[in-house]
Amino acid sequence: MADAARAAQPGATRMRREIGQIPAVVARILTEAPHDLREVAAAIRGRRPRFAVIAARGTSDHAANYAQYLMEIHLGLPTGLAKPSITTVYQRKLRWKGGLLLAISQSGQSPDIVAVVEAARAGGALTIAITNHPDSPLGDAAEHVLPCRAGRELAVPATKTYVAQLVVVAALVEAIGPSSDLSHGLAGLPATLRGTLRATDRWLSADGARAVDAFARATRALVVSRGYNLATALELALKFKETVGLFAEAYSTADFAHGPVVLAKPRIPVLAIRPDGPMGGLVDETLQQTTARGGRAVVIGGPGAAGMDGALALPFDLPEALTPIVYAVPGQLLVEATAKRRGISPDAPAGLGKVTRTR
Amino acid sequence: MADAARAAQPGATRMRREIGQIPAVVARILTEAPHDLREVAAAIRGRRPRFAVIAARGTSDHAANYAQYLMEIHLGLPTGLAKPSITTVYQRKLRWKGGLLLAISQSGQSPDIVAVVEAARAGGALTIAITNHPDSPLGDAAEHVLPCRAGRELAVPATKTYVAQLVVVAALVEAIGPSSDLSHGLAGLPATLRGTLRATDRWLSADGARAVDAFARATRALVVSRGYNLATALELALKFKETVGLFAEAYSTADFAHGPVVLAKPRIPVLAIRPDGPMGGLVDETLQQTTARGGRAVVIGGPGAAGMDGALALPFDLPEALTPIVYAVPGQLLVEATAKRRGISPDAPAGLGKVTRTR
Repeated sequence: MADAARAAQPGATRMRREIGQIPAVVARILTEAPHDLREVAAAIRGRRPRFAVIAARGTSDHAANYAQYLMEIHLGLPTGLAKPSITTVYQRKLRWKGGLLLAISQSGQSPDIVAVVEAARAGGALTIAITNHPDSPLGDAAEHVLPCRAGRELAVPATKTYVAQLVVVAALVEAIGPSSDLSHGLAGLPATLRGTLRATDRWLSADGARAVDAFARATRALVVSRGYNLATALELALKFKETVGLFAEAYSTADFAHGPVVLAKPRIPVLAIRPDGPMGGLVDETLQQTTARGGRAVVIGGPGAAGMDGALALPFDLPEALTPIVYAVPGQLLVEATAKRRGISPDAPAGLGKVTRTR
Repeated sequence: MADAARAAQPGATRMRREIGQIPAVVARILTEAPHDLREVAAAIRGRRPRFAVIAARGTSDHAANYAQYLMEIHLGLPTGLAKPSITTVYQRKLRWKGGLLLAISQSGQSPDIVAVVEAARAGGALTIAITNHPDSPLGDAAEHVLPCRAGRELAVPATKTYVAQLVVVAALVEAIGPSSDLSHGLAGLPATLRGTLRATDRWLSADGARAVDAFARATRALVVSRGYNLATALELALKFKETVGLFAEAYSTADFAHGPVVLAKPRIPVLAIRPDGPMGGLVDETLQQTTARGGRAVVIGGPGAAGMDGALALPFDLPEALTPIVYAVPGQLLVEATAKRRGISPDAPAGLGKVTRTR
């Protein structure tokens, strides 16, 4: 039973079933999106933006964080994250000319994100929306729309729609400035993600069971990474909060050293997202600081994490730029398993709805 | 005794004494900085930047958050926050031309911030550093340097240097595009800050004592605001972490509704920073959601907070753009009082140094 087929079990939670759909969603994007991606990439190349701004909230804001790294590293384009209240509450206009505005939203409904797109478009920016609901106010407001093709998501915690957002962002960046690194890695993602579901199931019934115990017993937790996978840390901390009610806070390992390291101690588990390469070495420094203070770390990472105590070391060779697409999945499964261990239904946390409208 | 003179008591903590110096530091900036500010403002106007990027870590990153609002609202300049690892770890170059790079650092020592300034300057950006140590690697790297004039800060938790950074940012924005609103408010700050120290001392020996009790007993806390004062919320959450070891997380009230609201419950106190005006109304919505879940809120705000249960309503009429300079101070005093109530010395938290060097 310890394999992806578990996703089809009638007793599985909606959240678990939707995580199980991720390989198929990603395969669908890679098959169906290229036409739209080429068109939008040509529009961006034609406009030669000087800077980019990304508008998003909640889970989508973590996809925006990932997009900032990808756009700065692969396109050299200075990129920032929008403060929607400047448009909606303070009602001021930015000098949008020469800019690219990228909006990311699962539902396409949040009025503040729509307002930023309208203001940027009126001000002369090129506007692009990435959304699972192209037929939405956001889809209407943006000049170009890239659908996430994730299908209906019924569980309140976003899982497959988050991964779909990351894949659309990566495929768009690849289409703008082709990188053989990204292209090759993208094509292999569905198989890598199927392997990741299987490897995570095996881990959760072995060493990962101790990790589930630690998070299920905890009242506080930390999630750390840096670079591309800061997005993964932010997203998994939010998943722990909204799904398990666990006070989990995410930190860049660099900011961690500027204060929050004092929080590390026994019974406050630390989840570390550890890619291979130089960034992995920097994450290791934080792990050493954490364990020196008696903290207990759970590592999700690449082949280089093999041999680290209790780690899930995914045996796939991937460019670091694509690891957030893959590493989110074992994190989501860890959160789902923690919720079940606590006796909580992960599908509909009390007090949260699927669509959040902020002004 | 309930007045600013308490700062001079020999028994006071360093942190308390340094908070007490804030009005004098701000008066010094307003007297000594205008010459430098006019020169830097002229350089910025002459270069007509298309976008701005701010590089900072830890407490200074919260000053950067404030600067993003000020620069977007008052100058209309699209502004983002730098990801230093793109320069130092991934070693990629951004297209800096047409950009303004603002670096903020208390010590001027962090190698990653210095590296971003060097890369931006080499790439054609106008580079400006705001630091309390102009004679530092950061001071050497930037084309223009604006000193914070805060004097030596000995307590590890930054207090007067944080407020000094905010004042230098506000004075710079005012010098670039004079706003009578900002000018008038800036001139009155030293008196307002003296009044704030007195009002906070009175509050802490009355209603505020219950707030100190609540935070001293808590293992988890939330700090919320939105807009300009998101910086205040982020900074006070970090102060609670590093000074008290309290797991306090800051949220924009807009992002709060996208998940973390489920964390609100009894024994998890919520500190809300509430300016008057439309933003205050949005903070009130979050307070209602919080109290509906049994959460207990402590409000620091302006005249409009008078009458709210247990609130510190500072009776000063200020443009909202300047309220983060003032509202940080009662928050710092609340953190210091919480540390003392817990029997912790706030001056030198175990495991933290005054200067943090990140790569």
